[in-house]
Amino acid sequence: MYTIDYLEKFTNEVFKKIGCTDDDAKMITDVFIAAELRGLPSHGMLRIKDYYQLWKANRINTKPNVKIVHESPSTAVVDGDKAIGMVAATKSMEIAINKAKKAGTGWVSTRNSNHYGIAGFYSMMALKEDMIGISMTNANPVVAPALSTSRLLGTNPITVAIPANKYPPFVADFATTPIARGKLAVAEKQGKNVSTGFVQDKQGNSTDNPSILKEGGSMLTLGGDYEHGSHKGYCLSAIVDIFSAVFSGANFGPFVPPSVAYLPVLEEKTGEGTGHFFGAMRIDAFQKEEVFKDKMDKWIETFKNAKPAKGYNRVYIPGEIEREKEIEIRKTGINIIPAVKDELIVIANELNIDFK
Amino acid sequence: MYTIDYLEKFTNEVFKKIGCTDDDAKMITDVFIAAELRGLPSHGMLRIKDYYQLWKANRINTKPNVKIVHESPSTAVVDGDKAIGMVAATKSMEIAINKAKKAGTGWVSTRNSNHYGIAGFYSMMALKEDMIGISMTNANPVVAPALSTSRLLGTNPITVAIPANKYPPFVADFATTPIARGKLAVAEKQGKNVSTGFVQDKQGNSTDNPSILKEGGSMLTLGGDYEHGSHKGYCLSAIVDIFSAVFSGANFGPFVPPSVAYLPVLEEKTGEGTGHFFGAMRIDAFQKEEVFKDKMDKWIETFKNAKPAKGYNRVYIPGEIEREKEIEIRKTGINIIPAVKDELIVIANELNIDFK
Repeated sequence: MYTIDYLEKFTNEVFKKIGCTDDDAKMITDVFIAAELRGLPSHGMLRIKDYYQLWKANRINTKPNVKIVHESPSTAVVDGDKAIGMVAATKSMEIAINKAKKAGTGWVSTRNSNHYGIAGFYSMMALKEDMIGISMTNANPVVAPALSTSRLLGTNPITVAIPANKYPPFVADFATTPIARGKLAVAEKQGKNVSTGFVQDKQGNSTDNPSILKEGGSMLTLGGDYEHGSHKGYCLSAIVDIFSAVFSGANFGPFVPPSVAYLPVLEEKTGEGTGHFFGAMRIDAFQKEEVFKDKMDKWIETFKNAKPAKGYNRVYIPGEIEREKEIEIRKTGINIIPAVKDELIVIANELNIDFK
Repeated sequence: MYTIDYLEKFTNEVFKKIGCTDDDAKMITDVFIAAELRGLPSHGMLRIKDYYQLWKANRINTKPNVKIVHESPSTAVVDGDKAIGMVAATKSMEIAINKAKKAGTGWVSTRNSNHYGIAGFYSMMALKEDMIGISMTNANPVVAPALSTSRLLGTNPITVAIPANKYPPFVADFATTPIARGKLAVAEKQGKNVSTGFVQDKQGNSTDNPSILKEGGSMLTLGGDYEHGSHKGYCLSAIVDIFSAVFSGANFGPFVPPSVAYLPVLEEKTGEGTGHFFGAMRIDAFQKEEVFKDKMDKWIETFKNAKPAKGYNRVYIPGEIEREKEIEIRKTGINIIPAVKDELIVIANELNIDFK
């Protein structure tokens, strides 16, 4: 078990060592720690290695000039200047929030960025301003569209955060695949198989092998098979891809530059870097704040009181599991699995900083 | 087989007979016919009976004053004045498009409406203005959140339409459940069972009975079971519900006034009528139009060229199946199943118009 402070200090040091400013290193660290606290280790310390390798491959800019390149009263396109995703994303979401202050809503599509960590971090930024926040991003091409075996899409998450009054906010944050890719990585590191319905092999056969992506396999979209709506998961993932990359001028679909070593970096490009999409909506662009928040309370209460299905004792509000996890992890500290600890020790040694 | 003209004339007459203006009857008819042409009979003539019964129950206003009740530069809340959904929705989408002309994007949440037919009709309205269109709506509470048996959500569809250049537009239009409720109604009318993974009985047991909703059963969310992401389908459906109803002041979740006779009309209300949400985004709020459309062409081409999985010979672009269906149905005419034909004859007789 590690304390939050220890991992925060370490992560900060890693990113300062590779050239980030103090402010940027803090932005990046905040997202990593938030992932661990929300019980999403698949997006936490496990990913430091990916960024470190990208930096070594000279594929990220640790001194980026993140800026607006196109705008309208309620929209902007931001160029991330090859920033580490968390830096481009935090600044883009700030722009969306500022647009919303004037126009009621603000919508930002960002290009030339990299993997940005947990999507929910950015939608939740809007909550502090009493706004509804939205974020999505495209990602490593490891997902096949419905009825296909070609790896054309990422796990492309969608997140929406909505403030309430007496209850904590509604925070939906989910990949548009049955599970997040990071969960395959965790199963693989733990030497476990996964359930069927998540991945298929190169020919399209169902498999429980979490390493299948390294053998040309692909992830399925939300819905699983066609009869049960895999085309709907495909639609969702495609919408995220287009909003994040066609809107901004980033690479889309299979052209997204991979952040994992087992995918090749293609010569053909359809834009710059990875793309994200952000939205902020002022509550009072629709309703008086108190009316809105009271209705959200009533909404939450209604769903909290739902009857659990046989074998379950509770129905959750989106965001509730992660919030409870955070309360628990703040008490217990953060667990890092041995395989990840070993990776971090190697990085620490190479950068001449301390980690044990 | 019926000709488009015949059904168009009939539908127009039905709605004029119950008191709609010529313009409003045309708006309503356009949506019904579009559903039949796109191969979605579950949202076509089969539904006329529902509206007719609502009118008889004095639950719709055929002379509505649809108006903006709150706005910001990029948003509006519209009161549908108990209109038939198609009328409130068409006018709301026009407002979203007009907002987008000035602010770059326009977002409208609509209350006090009713079932609006196929969601895709409204997102596709934006295409004519070279904009991206979005639409969603809440609906009859027949869906249980993940891990629950309580019917708290509708099949709450999401649709996004995006223009391209040489290719037809990308049009995603899907319920946030594995199948649309209307497809259960069609199976029921045809006396067929459905696959498992779509509905559960009152206790939460899996079933293939398409009539189970009449016996207290519920539909599952997209994803099916919890392990395969039913909580993600729940999140999507919940987002649609909140955007459509909490934003606008419509009834949300289980309080949505049902448009089917087997669900009770609750005394408790959380707002006015059914809620919808609409969005329009100007392409040039993000990119130069030609650049954007060329990239969409490249996107579409990339996905058209995907490798089909074993046993399939083609990978579809969202909207392609419906477009091809329309070409076919324009040639063959529209098929109405006997059970629906019988219903229409009863309605025609009662309204003293002709249908055979």
